Amino acid sequence: MRFEVQGGCAGARRGRLHTAHGVVETPAFMPVATHGAVKGVAPWMLEEIGATIVLSNAYHLAQRPGVDVVRALGGVHGLLAWPGPVLTDSGGFQLFSLAALLRVDDDGVEYRSHVDGRRGRFTPEDAIGVQEAMGVDIAMCLDECLPVAAPPLRVEEALRRTTAWARRCAAARRRPGTALFGIVQGGFDLALRARSAVELTALGFDGHAVGGLCVGEPPEQTREIAAAVAPQLPAERPRYLMGVGTPRDLLTFVSMGYDLFDCVLPTRNARNGMLFTREGKLTIRNARHAGDTRPVDETCACPTCRRFSRGALRHLMMTGEMLGAQLASVHNLYFYLHLMREIRAALEEGTFPERPRRAAGAWA
Amino acid sequence: MRFEVQGGCAGARRGRLHTAHGVVETPAFMPVATHGAVKGVAPWMLEEIGATIVLSNAYHLAQRPGVDVVRALGGVHGLLAWPGPVLTDSGGFQLFSLAALLRVDDDGVEYRSHVDGRRGRFTPEDAIGVQEAMGVDIAMCLDECLPVAAPPLRVEEALRRTTAWARRCAAARRRPGTALFGIVQGGFDLALRARSAVELTALGFDGHAVGGLCVGEPPEQTREIAAAVAPQLPAERPRYLMGVGTPRDLLTFVSMGYDLFDCVLPTRNARNGMLFTREGKLTIRNARHAGDTRPVDETCACPTCRRFSRGALRHLMMTGEMLGAQLASVHNLYFYLHLMREIRAALEEGTFPERPRRAAGAWA
Repeated sequence: MRFEVQGGCAGARRGRLHTAHGVVETPAFMPVATHGAVKGVAPWMLEEIGATIVLSNAYHLAQRPGVDVVRALGGVHGLLAWPGPVLTDSGGFQLFSLAALLRVDDDGVEYRSHVDGRRGRFTPEDAIGVQEAMGVDIAMCLDECLPVAAPPLRVEEALRRTTAWARRCAAARRRPGTALFGIVQGGFDLALRARSAVELTALGFDGHAVGGLCVGEPPEQTREIAAAVAPQLPAERPRYLMGVGTPRDLLTFVSMGYDLFDCVLPTRNARNGMLFTREGKLTIRNARHAGDTRPVDETCACPTCRRFSRGALRHLMMTGEMLGAQLASVHNLYFYLHLMREIRAALEEGTFPERPRRAAGAWA
Repeated sequence: MRFEVQGGCAGARRGRLHTAHGVVETPAFMPVATHGAVKGVAPWMLEEIGATIVLSNAYHLAQRPGVDVVRALGGVHGLLAWPGPVLTDSGGFQLFSLAALLRVDDDGVEYRSHVDGRRGRFTPEDAIGVQEAMGVDIAMCLDECLPVAAPPLRVEEALRRTTAWARRCAAARRRPGTALFGIVQGGFDLALRARSAVELTALGFDGHAVGGLCVGEPPEQTREIAAAVAPQLPAERPRYLMGVGTPRDLLTFVSMGYDLFDCVLPTRNARNGMLFTREGKLTIRNARHAGDTRPVDETCACPTCRRFSRGALRHLMMTGEMLGAQLASVHNLYFYLHLMREIRAALEEGTFPERPRRAAGAWA
């Protein structure tokens, strides 16, 4: 993997990430395909609306369909029917958030499978082995994730363990084609975050992620931590802010020098009938949209807005037609991907953040 | 509406149906969009896989979103985001099969709405009014549909009523742009079917449908009735065999001179994981497909088969990803639409039924 920072503006970076399966222009948003599909959106549609990299989840795919099946199907690219770059989260966040966790110790995680109820162990070496075996372009280290209200001593213990696991992940690498990112933890304590950044960046990762944010804390706190950590991560490597966020968040964190983002918001909100528009949230089930012939967003060029009225989309959502969720997901992902295109164009022409703010509209 | 029979071969007809929203080459299969969407398949995908006309349901759309809303959204074409021809069933079959029926008399049907539980009446005049108001290209008369085991006196009563309602439907027409088809009933009694055909064809409909078949009777009985009725319907008008059928059925009934077909099988089976292939049924959830890199059908050029392996599709179905149902629906509809293309090509070049039999494979 190779990363070039090609320019920047107002703290933000315009970059290019070369992976084994293609180039990602950054800053970039990664649609989420946790279980092997971006929910309701076929890969040809992802290409049409401008996705260049997707995120999946090593723990979930290792549970189902299993690493051997993924390998037999041509790796994660074969499973997803997506020939472009794929980043996988190791599954740390899922293990700790699915209530699948039985026990964590310095060796690794003991969990009960959410699929078949069997007990299993997942170690840092497993995380690397699974991701390399599935042929992902960018693998993530296994990290220990804590709830937002964890007590200070637990935060420090998790940080110590995350660093130790990151060291073991780095040592476990066998496949040079798979890039590996470390994950900064440390909760909401600036000193612990700084220590995590120092310890991780010493390990020579291909890129660095910031985890444990956007887990329910106040937005000021997210911003404070993210702003403090970014300059502590090497400028010549990509920076990935995990699980972020709203369109406004993307503008904010791009301006701090982050390059990669992922979030379930566009697809999850779409399934719940909440659409992103330049004028703000649009709750498509509202009765006032019933006879409205306008598209969801009159300034939007996505396939859904080019063809469907608000009234038609509302009808599909009200009758529970899965096409409604599909069309809404396409629109919301397009809104995010278009915003990232506007961000990149603005960074090239020196109009960041004004130009993408217009694209974000009420979300800026 | 105008219909030209351009040729034929071995009893089958190659035709062209000119409607207010475009031309339908026949024989044609109509994907089913009962509630306003072909389940899981966007209209741009219907176009890509070669659909030229879709079927919706006047009773369902009148319940939800309601005739006024459909009108406000640009009629049924606006609601479906489908600019091409649309045929609507009046809803007779649904009223009689949804257990929504409270009472039927010579005036019409009294039902309890499946949406909000309210009582309503639906008369032949309502059926025409609703379909004309929604701007459909081809409307169907309201008919009385019976279960397969109805006693002879009930069958005769329903036939008498269906003819009387057809007469009222014909008299209720106001909009010349909306074609109207009558529906032959008469159960499984050849004499009653003949009487129905005589009575209906006297009323000057733009086309004729045969209803009440494929409702659970033995296949020989379906074929016997369909074969007897077809020649009793005017050759210069399109013949529509409602709710039919398997790929084999399509070949059989095309050869009897039927021109239009609709069926939920391709989409419903897709959602249940049953795929149509040249080699027969493929149950995608079977464990043996888990690591199979072959497409669902190696001879198929549909978007799903061009990109997804059996193993990947199986994984999506097993994890309940809606993308699985979408991809399977695209494949199954393509199988049907491709078979119809092969049928039409064979009728042009005089190779019917051999050529489409190869396309149907084990289904022929």
